[in-house]
Amino acid sequence: MPTISNKGTAMPASPIRKLTPFADAAKKEGKKIYHLNIGQPDIETPEVMLNALKNIDFKVWAYTPSEGTASYRNKLVEYYNKLNYQIEASDILVTNGGSEAITIAMQACINPGEEVIIPEPFYANYNGFACSSDIVIKPIMSYIENGFALPSIAEFEKVITEKTKAIAICNPNNPTGYLYSREEMEALRVLCLKYDLYLFSDEAYREFCYDGREFISPMHLEGLEEHVVVLDTVSKRYSACGARIGCIITKNKELYQTALKFAQARLSPSLEGQIAGEAAVDTPDSYFEAVSKEYTARRDTLVQGLNSMEGVFCPVPGGAFYVVAQLPIDNADKFCQWMLEEFDYQQETVMMAPATGFYSSPQVGTNQVRLAYVLNQEDLKKALICLEKALIAYPGRTLA
Amino acid sequence: MPTISNKGTAMPASPIRKLTPFADAAKKEGKKIYHLNIGQPDIETPEVMLNALKNIDFKVWAYTPSEGTASYRNKLVEYYNKLNYQIEASDILVTNGGSEAITIAMQACINPGEEVIIPEPFYANYNGFACSSDIVIKPIMSYIENGFALPSIAEFEKVITEKTKAIAICNPNNPTGYLYSREEMEALRVLCLKYDLYLFSDEAYREFCYDGREFISPMHLEGLEEHVVVLDTVSKRYSACGARIGCIITKNKELYQTALKFAQARLSPSLEGQIAGEAAVDTPDSYFEAVSKEYTARRDTLVQGLNSMEGVFCPVPGGAFYVVAQLPIDNADKFCQWMLEEFDYQQETVMMAPATGFYSSPQVGTNQVRLAYVLNQEDLKKALICLEKALIAYPGRTLA
Repeated sequence: MPTISNKGTAMPASPIRKLTPFADAAKKEGKKIYHLNIGQPDIETPEVMLNALKNIDFKVWAYTPSEGTASYRNKLVEYYNKLNYQIEASDILVTNGGSEAITIAMQACINPGEEVIIPEPFYANYNGFACSSDIVIKPIMSYIENGFALPSIAEFEKVITEKTKAIAICNPNNPTGYLYSREEMEALRVLCLKYDLYLFSDEAYREFCYDGREFISPMHLEGLEEHVVVLDTVSKRYSACGARIGCIITKNKELYQTALKFAQARLSPSLEGQIAGEAAVDTPDSYFEAVSKEYTARRDTLVQGLNSMEGVFCPVPGGAFYVVAQLPIDNADKFCQWMLEEFDYQQETVMMAPATGFYSSPQVGTNQVRLAYVLNQEDLKKALICLEKALIAYPGRTLA
Repeated sequence: MPTISNKGTAMPASPIRKLTPFADAAKKEGKKIYHLNIGQPDIETPEVMLNALKNIDFKVWAYTPSEGTASYRNKLVEYYNKLNYQIEASDILVTNGGSEAITIAMQACINPGEEVIIPEPFYANYNGFACSSDIVIKPIMSYIENGFALPSIAEFEKVITEKTKAIAICNPNNPTGYLYSREEMEALRVLCLKYDLYLFSDEAYREFCYDGREFISPMHLEGLEEHVVVLDTVSKRYSACGARIGCIITKNKELYQTALKFAQARLSPSLEGQIAGEAAVDTPDSYFEAVSKEYTARRDTLVQGLNSMEGVFCPVPGGAFYVVAQLPIDNADKFCQWMLEEFDYQQETVMMAPATGFYSSPQVGTNQVRLAYVLNQEDLKKALICLEKALIAYPGRTLA
């Protein structure tokens, strides 16, 4: 029997899905599970986008150009320039979801063995993309005490070596919900110029900024034209995770041409996804206003509910639809599994993601969980009651 | 300015697209171009498939499981078991097109620096996938004289070393159209067992076998359960290249679980693509009969037309919708460019793919071109007249 590759063996399994067998078993037992474990919003996709799919009129479902259709890229320019990105269609490369945008950017910029610095906790699949490209992630710690703010520039400089090729941020952040400030972004600008590093900016949650706070992209910063690589997706913006349409934006022409070669090898993003993505740009502002209002209310419900529990601490995040909370527990992996396997409150339980999966450093985040507020408020409230009861009943509780 | 990765520099640009700027210029001059250069069929996508897209009724365009929806995979079992593959849904991993199927299979099976043997000429993008995974393709030559039949097993054995991990075939073949016989497949079976190698079987063109000839998959061969990896796509079968839905099929459970980890990192194939793919399985036989009849007629028109030209030789392929023809020319790259830049016959010309892009060995195939018979017969006939005139006018003609 031929052997599996070393990379295949090393490839991390999704930490989010580790608990799936336990959830399946719980469902079989008749338990209702509140899914706060994954970033699959319950928000409806904009009608203009779904209608575009229903109204397709092609007869031949053909390849598009590898970089995406001219029509979609031109429409995206309209979207991005409203955000003051000052880009052209030739700066946009359409990808199969944000996932492919990350993979191509890593492969085009970073040699095997070279390093990208990422504040942790970070989106767990970065580990998979780095592994599949033989790239090394150097984590630097952000802390729950200050809401997971950007680590100090001194901390970045401690891990910068000759092997460092890029810094990657996710803003607003998955899993912490932290929204980087103008000052933090400015500090990153100076750092990337000083050490001549790429700045990967994963902006999947750009639309989800609360309390009137301003979203700052590195595209808004001066002098970074050759360094910034924006990684984007329609998944969260339009609640269209299953469309698998994302993009890379870069003004670095050499990088663009290189990324295009990777894109040419896989031929094309999906035609219908681009048609729908193009229509989505015309989503009315009222849609986003309603969504933002809803998420703000959910966040407030969730954060207030969590902080009202004994021994629980949850910072108030400025964006995205996640929080990382600290619980009075011995071990988040055990606790999350226990909630599915052993616990119920009136035949209901909650599924959460242990935060350990978002830390690359070992033995960190062992008393933290990530919760996605992707359920309506009524369900959120029920999930909170469930969680409170569970924390009291849990044998590994660390409070007397 | 940060540097591009070495891989990015080494990544091959698509040889098929090298001529695009010349084609664009020719169009601007008002020339009509017959596109025989790419495998984008003009055949209409089955109505059942397009209707499924038009009739989607989800409100939230959500992620699907990383391995694909249960519903689609169950339906695919129906399709494959009609072909006597004897598989279960748990043997199928749905991918973003055949391209991703190839990438994941390579990464899961082959270490950086290890080798896969592929008869050449071969599908040019294999080079890109190998480059992006740091895998080495060892080509072995097939020859136009015998219609690009499988090289002898002795030729395979000559290049097998400790680094050899897999053999890859595309059957029916792109670019040659060659359909491997039962004897050839049986020889590969013995070889893969003897040296314990994976057998990658790219079956994108499975439906396109002519003259009543039988398609033999390694799934039909005994004792290869742990070795066979089928790479498939809906692109050509249903003329749905833009749907980006493919799959990996393997009965090797360890390999499946490894491939799944790569699939989990990129989250999910597209939801709507799977819905359409599921509907496509119910495409009536009459569709394929009509398509097969049409392609057979086109192939005959093209091959007979080519062989009637002085100094041209084109074998009669048994499948797919490509031929590789030998022309009386000094250099296929120059000739194909010249046809776009310098030549026209009544304001018309033909775009073809120089075969050099399909050979990994240097200086081979320099007098060969690949032609895709993806145009209707009337256009094909006009393209043939054009080509005949061009061969007479071409300054680099090698016949007196």
